[in-house]
Amino acid sequence: MRKENISDAVIRRLPRYYRQLSELRAKGITRTSSLSLGREMGITASQIRQDFSCFGEFGQQGYGYHVRELCEEIGRILGVDRNHHLIVVGAGRLGQALMENFPFAKCGFTVDAAFDIAPGLIGSAVNGITVRAMDDITAWLRENPVDVVALTVPREAARPVSDRLIALGVRGFWNFTNLELSSEHPGVQFENIHFSDSLLTLSYRIANG
Amino acid sequence: MRKENISDAVIRRLPRYYRQLSELRAKGITRTSSLSLGREMGITASQIRQDFSCFGEFGQQGYGYHVRELCEEIGRILGVDRNHHLIVVGAGRLGQALMENFPFAKCGFTVDAAFDIAPGLIGSAVNGITVRAMDDITAWLRENPVDVVALTVPREAARPVSDRLIALGVRGFWNFTNLELSSEHPGVQFENIHFSDSLLTLSYRIANG
Repeated sequence: MRKENISDAVIRRLPRYYRQLSELRAKGITRTSSLSLGREMGITASQIRQDFSCFGEFGQQGYGYHVRELCEEIGRILGVDRNHHLIVVGAGRLGQALMENFPFAKCGFTVDAAFDIAPGLIGSAVNGITVRAMDDITAWLRENPVDVVALTVPREAARPVSDRLIALGVRGFWNFTNLELSSEHPGVQFENIHFSDSLLTLSYRIANG
Repeated sequence: MRKENISDAVIRRLPRYYRQLSELRAKGITRTSSLSLGREMGITASQIRQDFSCFGEFGQQGYGYHVRELCEEIGRILGVDRNHHLIVVGAGRLGQALMENFPFAKCGFTVDAAFDIAPGLIGSAVNGITVRAMDDITAWLRENPVDVVALTVPREAARPVSDRLIALGVRGFWNFTNLELSSEHPGVQFENIHFSDSLLTLSYRIANG
């Protein structure tokens, strides 16, 4: 499997392929083609074939793709079979919404705990996940290493909290704080979610659609 | 200003340019260049010049861009000066998190109301926004047309609720339900936010970064 120099754009399409193939599987569809996937996803068939070719040979010329096999293969590339460990730092409304509703297990993640500084939240549980005191996070992480922190603290806390967590060994951040964080530390990955980017895209489309 | 056939990829970069330029403005930086913007954003300078050329001439060969002017121009293209009206449908944790924390005004949006079916929520207010009964939405929308619905209902309600809202004249959906919605109705725009796409991108990067 070749995986060098794969562009960000290709990597960002992989979860979309995985999502679409999962939907096809759920509908009981067993075979598809780059043409049909492309139509469903608004991507050209040649783009799809080119994207897949970065990871080896998935389908057979003229026969298309086996949905389950392709879905599982892309899932493996994305790491959904790896059982990553995650904690939620910031157990306010957004953190709670994630714990309550987000399908972590389907993405290959287990949520081990949540952390907050609010006395009213500490000791409570959301969807079976205990909210712990931020003061205890150093000791906790020593015993329970995690792959990813879902960062749902207020924007002004984003930088100090992520710096502290990096110092504690955290290497992956799923960042909802609306502050663009980037890594000066080698090996630290930030995935920044900017809700505003998507609302502004919609705003543009309303005027120009 | 030419605006025909602008690709989705270009449109999706516009909010990122807007965000970066807003940050530069906040830092008091008055001039920038495609080279410098590109370095900050991980985009090539030629891509940036090509993107901007879709919307006319910003900047002067050899002198770069005036940050405030470029920021305002991209803001106008995105419609941040248009004062769009929005309601939140689904006032659970995620809907509340948006109402509490999301900078709607900065994006050119006013949140007029929220709607839910839970008796315990109806009549309450979040960040000054009243939560109303879903039963009253038909009458309410007749008096208060909106540009966008932030759809934060449970996944299983996504389709029936959006169908009902389309029938009531809603044409823009900011969809957080994790169900991919697309428009069969001409003029209806869906912007689907899939948190899982971003978590899986992070998962890939952790293994391959």
